[in-house]
Amino acid sequence: MTYAVALRLDQGIVFAADTRTNAGVDNISRFRKLHYWNKPGDRSLVLLTAGNLAVTQSVVSVLNEQLEAEPDPKRPTLFTVSSMYRAARLIGSAVRDIRDVDGPALEASAGFAASFILGGQIGNEPPRLFQIYAEGNFIEATDDTPYLQIGEHKYGKPILDRVTQSSMRLGEAAKLILLSFDSTMRSNLSVGMPIDLLVYETGSLDIRQVRRIDNDDEYFRRLSKAWSDALRGSVERMEEFQV
Amino acid sequence: MTYAVALRLDQGIVFAADTRTNAGVDNISRFRKLHYWNKPGDRSLVLLTAGNLAVTQSVVSVLNEQLEAEPDPKRPTLFTVSSMYRAARLIGSAVRDIRDVDGPALEASAGFAASFILGGQIGNEPPRLFQIYAEGNFIEATDDTPYLQIGEHKYGKPILDRVTQSSMRLGEAAKLILLSFDSTMRSNLSVGMPIDLLVYETGSLDIRQVRRIDNDDEYFRRLSKAWSDALRGSVERMEEFQV
Repeated sequence: MTYAVALRLDQGIVFAADTRTNAGVDNISRFRKLHYWNKPGDRSLVLLTAGNLAVTQSVVSVLNEQLEAEPDPKRPTLFTVSSMYRAARLIGSAVRDIRDVDGPALEASAGFAASFILGGQIGNEPPRLFQIYAEGNFIEATDDTPYLQIGEHKYGKPILDRVTQSSMRLGEAAKLILLSFDSTMRSNLSVGMPIDLLVYETGSLDIRQVRRIDNDDEYFRRLSKAWSDALRGSVERMEEFQV
Repeated sequence: MTYAVALRLDQGIVFAADTRTNAGVDNISRFRKLHYWNKPGDRSLVLLTAGNLAVTQSVVSVLNEQLEAEPDPKRPTLFTVSSMYRAARLIGSAVRDIRDVDGPALEASAGFAASFILGGQIGNEPPRLFQIYAEGNFIEATDDTPYLQIGEHKYGKPILDRVTQSSMRLGEAAKLILLSFDSTMRSNLSVGMPIDLLVYETGSLDIRQVRRIDNDDEYFRRLSKAWSDALRGSVERMEEFQV
């Protein structure tokens, strides 16, 4: 399982993904699910992946092969597409390519499961955020719903639903995302540390902040402890039900 | 969808279930999912149901028919079984009866989905709490995990995980359960008001507190508002992530 989330704010986009993969609870490994492509001054693209690891790794491989191939104006790549919308289409098309190859065999067993969050900024466009489905189609985050989640999204959603605002500072948003992870990891073992966190600042056209937050990260421990205390304290202070 | 939960405490058991059922989002109705059988001074049994409404209603009908049938020492009923464990077996057996009749047709379409929480007290036994599966087998809540949930359990679990303690007062537990419903209903439309809430007091062998909490319940509105404010305030007061 995976939990990955991205929050699109006025000041930028904050991305995070856990790193646990499992084939049954007795076969757990660590894989990066946060990928990015950066061309400073021109574009910064970030991709979060969830679902079948063979599928999502293949999609990333296809995208990278396109970048390494002989330049051809007829074959766009993540470094040549003119907009984030075109980048989302490129990834959707890579998903469909992989489905053509692996889909039938997977549908007959585990199912073809994969989902993606793509965010970033290209040139003069404002930062944009998309969720791409296993079918290769996608939706874009808007001001009404400025965050997107993939994977095990339920445990961490209530806190996002109540607190998220487009006007938040990036540090506040990163804090909120880590709280959302804390709730998820407490309830679902298949989502696990470390967490990859990437903070993209609007207009920077550069990726300057990528942090891996591990079990012994001091800030995360303090946050987790403070959050438990605050929740318990808040519940305690509420008016009791009259029995 | 359904959300139902029960918390087994030293002082008693608190049960709650929503009342929304739906066949698609364009066909929503209200059905009671909290049922109880009470014989003051002898036993109090409470059943929460989730899953296919045709299945769960049939199970309740079978249990009630047993009560109305000519008494027969060879055919135990909820009013004659000697322990909560026997009551859970009786319900499991009713589920299997319904599966024999309706299982094949349901497996071919929507699937045979049903789950139950049974709690209460019989005679000198301490109060006990069980979760019964669609297969008719069941587990019992212990001090390690004093609460059980069925249906849409994920959104409301983080708060229960952090705060539940067997030593809680019943009014505190009822408050906690309502907060857990508040989180669930915000994130999943298919769980909806009103909520049926039943508070059983250890040793009472009587059901004295059954409340239907509706949209305009003043306590629930105050609680929901205070909880939103407390969560937002708590997040705000936490140390920000350094970007």
